Amino acid sequence: MAEPSFAASSLVTVDDYESAARERLTPTAYDYYRSGADEEHTLRRNREAFSRYEIWYRTLVDVATPRLATTVLGDDVAFPILVAPTAYHRLACAEGERATARGAAAVGTIYCASTLATTTLEDVAVAAPSAPRWFQLYVHKDRAFTARLVARAKAAGYRAIVVTADAPVLGRRLADVRNEFCLPDGMLMANLVEALPPDLRDGAGSELARFFAARHDPSFVWSDLEEIVRQAAPLPVVVKGIVRPDDARKALDHGARAVWVSNHGGRQLDLAPATIDVLGDVARAVGDRCEVYVDGGIRSGTHALVALGLGARAVFVGRPVLWGLAAAGAEGVAGVLELMRDELIRAMQLAGCPDPEATRDDLIRRR
Amino acid sequence: MAEPSFAASSLVTVDDYESAARERLTPTAYDYYRSGADEEHTLRRNREAFSRYEIWYRTLVDVATPRLATTVLGDDVAFPILVAPTAYHRLACAEGERATARGAAAVGTIYCASTLATTTLEDVAVAAPSAPRWFQLYVHKDRAFTARLVARAKAAGYRAIVVTADAPVLGRRLADVRNEFCLPDGMLMANLVEALPPDLRDGAGSELARFFAARHDPSFVWSDLEEIVRQAAPLPVVVKGIVRPDDARKALDHGARAVWVSNHGGRQLDLAPATIDVLGDVARAVGDRCEVYVDGGIRSGTHALVALGLGARAVFVGRPVLWGLAAAGAEGVAGVLELMRDELIRAMQLAGCPDPEATRDDLIRRR
Amino acid sequence: MAEPSFAASSLVTVDDYESAARERLTPTAYDYYRSGADEEHTLRRNREAFSRYEIWYRTLVDVATPRLATTVLGDDVAFPILVAPTAYHRLACAEGERATARGAAAVGTIYCASTLATTTLEDVAVAAPSAPRWFQLYVHKDRAFTARLVARAKAAGYRAIVVTADAPVLGRRLADVRNEFCLPDGMLMANLVEALPPDLRDGAGSELARFFAARHDPSFVWSDLEEIVRQAAPLPVVVKGIVRPDDARKALDHGARAVWVSNHGGRQLDLAPATIDVLGDVARAVGDRCEVYVDGGIRSGTHALVALGLGARAVFVGRPVLWGLAAAGAEGVAGVLELMRDELIRAMQLAGCPDPEATRDDLIRRR
Amino acid sequence: MAEPSFAASSLVTVDDYESAARERLTPTAYDYYRSGADEEHTLRRNREAFSRYEIWYRTLVDVATPRLATTVLGDDVAFPILVAPTAYHRLACAEGERATARGAAAVGTIYCASTLATTTLEDVAVAAPSAPRWFQLYVHKDRAFTARLVARAKAAGYRAIVVTADAPVLGRRLADVRNEFCLPDGMLMANLVEALPPDLRDGAGSELARFFAARHDPSFVWSDLEEIVRQAAPLPVVVKGIVRPDDARKALDHGARAVWVSNHGGRQLDLAPATIDVLGDVARAVGDRCEVYVDGGIRSGTHALVALGLGARAVFVGRPVLWGLAAAGAEGVAGVLELMRDELIRAMQLAGCPDPEATRDDLIRRR
Repeated sequence: MAEPSFAASSLVTVDDYESAARERLTPTAYDYYRSGADEEHTLRRNREAFSRYEIWYRTLVDVATPRLATTVLGDDVAFPILVAPTAYHRLACAEGERATARGAAAVGTIYCASTLATTTLEDVAVAAPSAPRWFQLYVHKDRAFTARLVARAKAAGYRAIVVTADAPVLGRRLADVRNEFCLPDGMLMANLVEALPPDLRDGAGSELARFFAARHDPSFVWSDLEEIVRQAAPLPVVVKGIVRPDDARKALDHGARAVWVSNHGGRQLDLAPATIDVLGDVARAVGDRCEVYVDGGIRSGTHALVALGLGARAVFVGRPVLWGLAAAGAEGVAGVLELMRDELIRAMQLAGCPDPEATRDDLIRRR
Repeated sequence: MAEPSFAASSLVTVDDYESAARERLTPTAYDYYRSGADEEHTLRRNREAFSRYEIWYRTLVDVATPRLATTVLGDDVAFPILVAPTAYHRLACAEGERATARGAAAVGTIYCASTLATTTLEDVAVAAPSAPRWFQLYVHKDRAFTARLVARAKAAGYRAIVVTADAPVLGRRLADVRNEFCLPDGMLMANLVEALPPDLRDGAGSELARFFAARHDPSFVWSDLEEIVRQAAPLPVVVKGIVRPDDARKALDHGARAVWVSNHGGRQLDLAPATIDVLGDVARAVGDRCEVYVDGGIRSGTHALVALGLGARAVFVGRPVLWGLAAAGAEGVAGVLELMRDELIRAMQLAGCPDPEATRDDLIRRR
Repeated sequence: MAEPSFAASSLVTVDDYESAARERLTPTAYDYYRSGADEEHTLRRNREAFSRYEIWYRTLVDVATPRLATTVLGDDVAFPILVAPTAYHRLACAEGERATARGAAAVGTIYCASTLATTTLEDVAVAAPSAPRWFQLYVHKDRAFTARLVARAKAAGYRAIVVTADAPVLGRRLADVRNEFCLPDGMLMANLVEALPPDLRDGAGSELARFFAARHDPSFVWSDLEEIVRQAAPLPVVVKGIVRPDDARKALDHGARAVWVSNHGGRQLDLAPATIDVLGDVARAVGDRCEVYVDGGIRSGTHALVALGLGARAVFVGRPVLWGLAAAGAEGVAGVLELMRDELIRAMQLAGCPDPEATRDDLIRRR
Repeated sequence: MAEPSFAASSLVTVDDYESAARERLTPTAYDYYRSGADEEHTLRRNREAFSRYEIWYRTLVDVATPRLATTVLGDDVAFPILVAPTAYHRLACAEGERATARGAAAVGTIYCASTLATTTLEDVAVAAPSAPRWFQLYVHKDRAFTARLVARAKAAGYRAIVVTADAPVLGRRLADVRNEFCLPDGMLMANLVEALPPDLRDGAGSELARFFAARHDPSFVWSDLEEIVRQAAPLPVVVKGIVRPDDARKALDHGARAVWVSNHGGRQLDLAPATIDVLGDVARAVGDRCEVYVDGGIRSGTHALVALGLGARAVFVGRPVLWGLAAAGAEGVAGVLELMRDELIRAMQLAGCPDPEATRDDLIRRR
């Protein structure tokens, strides 16, 4: 794969990227990216949960050339760390989501663009035309508008539709409420121009919360998912935001092709469980029926190894990519992904796992 | 329901209300409200326990119009967060318990007035005449006096008698002992004028502790409860302060109509268990025989959701209401209750629960 | 019982007594009393363990007149909190162990004097002649000398011989090693004058450690206990320092009349378990065969209640009494014991226990 | 055994030695010795794990003359605390590994020299010719070179070959990466002179990491171990770095004579379990088939007792010896080992264990 020229010699952990990003972001933008819902129990749980897992590594296994390449819904990725959808990338970098797309493409992984991008999904597609990409979908009350979003993603060559299931309403991020967070002048939700209420800027608290309340559909249910599945066909639909084994099975029963364990990075329901703590149950519930992905608190390749060992086909990272994007644009995105990839390689070698499958057998234990 | 005009835009959590209240209260009054017994293990346990619970939310459920309205002992409430009895509201606000009653009524919930109010129960009744209200009863050695309190509550239109069972003697709140806490001049236990010892102000330590020792009855037992039940009839009697499943069944066996899980906000026996940790056991012990309520450490609508999920018909909040009262009188009471109501609505939506019953089925897990 | 005149209105917790004591003690003496062995894991465990216990209190029990009086090996005590043996009381108060004896007697409890007292056991006996008292015995290599100590205790009217079993050698208390702790001029181990090595003051580190190494007997075994039992007869022998159920049974099999669960206040083997964590197992192991006592980390009457509930006939307190002694001599000893007694009364009332026996039935649970 | 003349009266804990060492070391060298991999979870786990173990000591056992002497693979050691292999001793002391060898020999224990010594293994042998010593082996891609290392160790009278199994690649120690850690001029990996790449100093990050990547063999597997076993014969081969019971059995099945539970002091795979937490499982898995050793987080003789009780024949200590070496050369090595030996003696006495075998029976419990 192409190696970006970004020299990030002093950025040797995701925390380093976050520090560099924080220096470049406005406090309000940093808060928007960093924060979680309410008391931030779940935000903390996602990260702290990893400290309760143990990797019972194997020794004297040939790990000279670990194989990281895998497929995700049939598409090749160079390593099983993908880019989760996050909103508003132009807060981090002038080029916004186009830079993210290029950074992900440069290292051979998939970028899942958000409905709430500050660049149109078509512009994102143009930015890295040869790379596979996914589109994350929020279901609007205006179902025809929702269908148009799906159609646009298909037309622009996206490879999967990711339906967010954990956001019937917006979680309350206190920092955004207190900051009265809104997009700066000249920046907008580019995919949703026709859907933006004229009075969006008016009102107290978070602009995004008002938008959600006005447009998003809290009455969207499992049977409605089948309509999205039909619209998306032949693209596969992934349901994102699952924490329950029974919901994972329901997703498949209603046409989803894969399940994405997520609690929205701790930004929706506070006191939701850590994703890594539910991943194993969800993976066992679906067995061989589908691929399972996970996000939440994954800050290193070692964390990614834990997730693979518990049954994830791939992991998604959100905030780390934002820190890379804010630190150095597309090169920062590529840099942070390479960092995590290299950490994953090393962790697989030290764990005695020449490939992701080798992580599955009794490697990971919870204390 | 009526929306109070109080603009609380910067008060977005119960903690914000507490901070605002603390600025307005004397240190001694703040200490009286805040503190718990002895080392405050139970005070902390009540709050910290919530961090061990997980909400395994459901996705793709229609939560467009969550139903919060319920009934409590047959009376309608707009949402299942009610006002727990606490003493001495005139320390927080000149109008005292009348303001609390008006604030609760404004948002459609029930206020349980305390025996230790600084306003007579009759004045409380007049303050919000159309709202249902409950009366909390301490059993005095003078049983005839106790009976008169019950009779007064009935005459004033109260809808239930809540017998406090966790206070045979007063717990030792060290802050009050050190502060030699007593009511300021011009303020008194308005329901108990005829019962106040003439020498109440004399002595070291907490005035309330001396009053308890002089007047309250530590020999009140289950069989005596039946006398209260007869006096209260046709009003229902609720027993408050239960932490044991066997005590919950005893309460019903001796005529109580409902059980209130409480440890008095951590103010009585230190090392008592957190209420949320015993709620499930108590609820299972009584099954369908009665409604179960709970208080203790509930600081947000998300906490309330956990309690509903573990079997509570409704939750009661004490200190949060005091912070609202101190911050802004009746409007502050309404404001903090609306805040918690809105948090509960959002938590129910994010948890996939269109009504309280939906919280009961395998939603809440303890780590 | 007689009420001492010491007015301790500002001393409302054992911590208050410790603070007052610390002001009056030399840093070296305070360190000697306070410290534990090595990393002080066990010292901390003893105290922190209580925070894992819950008192599942009962309600509507008649607790108007809780009965605290009990018997210990047949002797009456006013309440089940007794004074553990600790060394060197003249470091805390000019009168030393005589003051401790008077303080304990004043409130109706038993003082167990230490072999390592700075006042002879005969002088201690004279100080409070009518009170029952016990004598703690370290077994010396010189068994004839050991026998003389037992004979002296019998002659002086002591009521039990307590053999310390957890000190075959002295634990290493780092503070004493660093302080090169030794008794000040004019103070000595008064019971052991004939046994003191002439060169006791010479050498590095703790004087007491050198004394132990020179005189104490690390080869004393269970069969040797029977000799002590014969020497002590008709006085009962108690074995102190037990943490194992099998050792408790061995003690009885070799003639002991009671078992004292202790880890020497965390001063001997670091990483020994907290005493409250082993008490229940030991109590179940001996069943009705004997009384069981416990010390370690008990800082309040509520802690004492937990210990009673887990099977202790009585609890012993060491450091709290030293803090009382240093703060105000005999009156301080009485004051701190009354404080803990009053806390125990209140805790029993709030727990619904009219007597110690009522604490035994499913009241205490470990989280 | 010979007593070194080093007077270490103020160095009464391993922490004291670390503080003294830190004053004498360059920050970079101190970081190299102290640090662990990545987030240092495993580094902390190794140490913190001990705080979850309890020693349920026995009383009234004859512990007058505890027997510490034992054999390790048939060689006598004065006490079961041995010196783990660590790299680069000339960073700590001009004499380097020769001083370590002399210090270990002075107190009668075994030093396991590292492949990465800054003194040749032949010079180490000369430094303490009469003491038994072991040689730790990293397997190079150049198997002939590896065989020569084994042959040299045999020729120099080493008594066992310890094959490190937990380092197929080097763990990432962030401190070394940030410090761009490399050996100072005039110091080199003395055993590996013929294998050093000419461009070793060039490049970013840790020099050692580059060396590992260039020379070490991540394809070394169990069947290859048999070749080392043949080369080493008649010397026994020990496999170091095992955390899994199944790997322990594999080691024996492929010719190893003993198993060494280690996670490389938390320096290789972060999130590996604490060694003390896996020791019991490994010891049970091999039963009587071989001796089991352990290192990781052992900072006191009390920790060593826990390890013996869980099934270790002996423990190895790495960093404590480095602190001794940096503090005072060979005398510091002897001093810190004597300190830990004396702590072990005391802990055995206080635990009622006259010999290591007595620690095995139900003495150690995990909370």
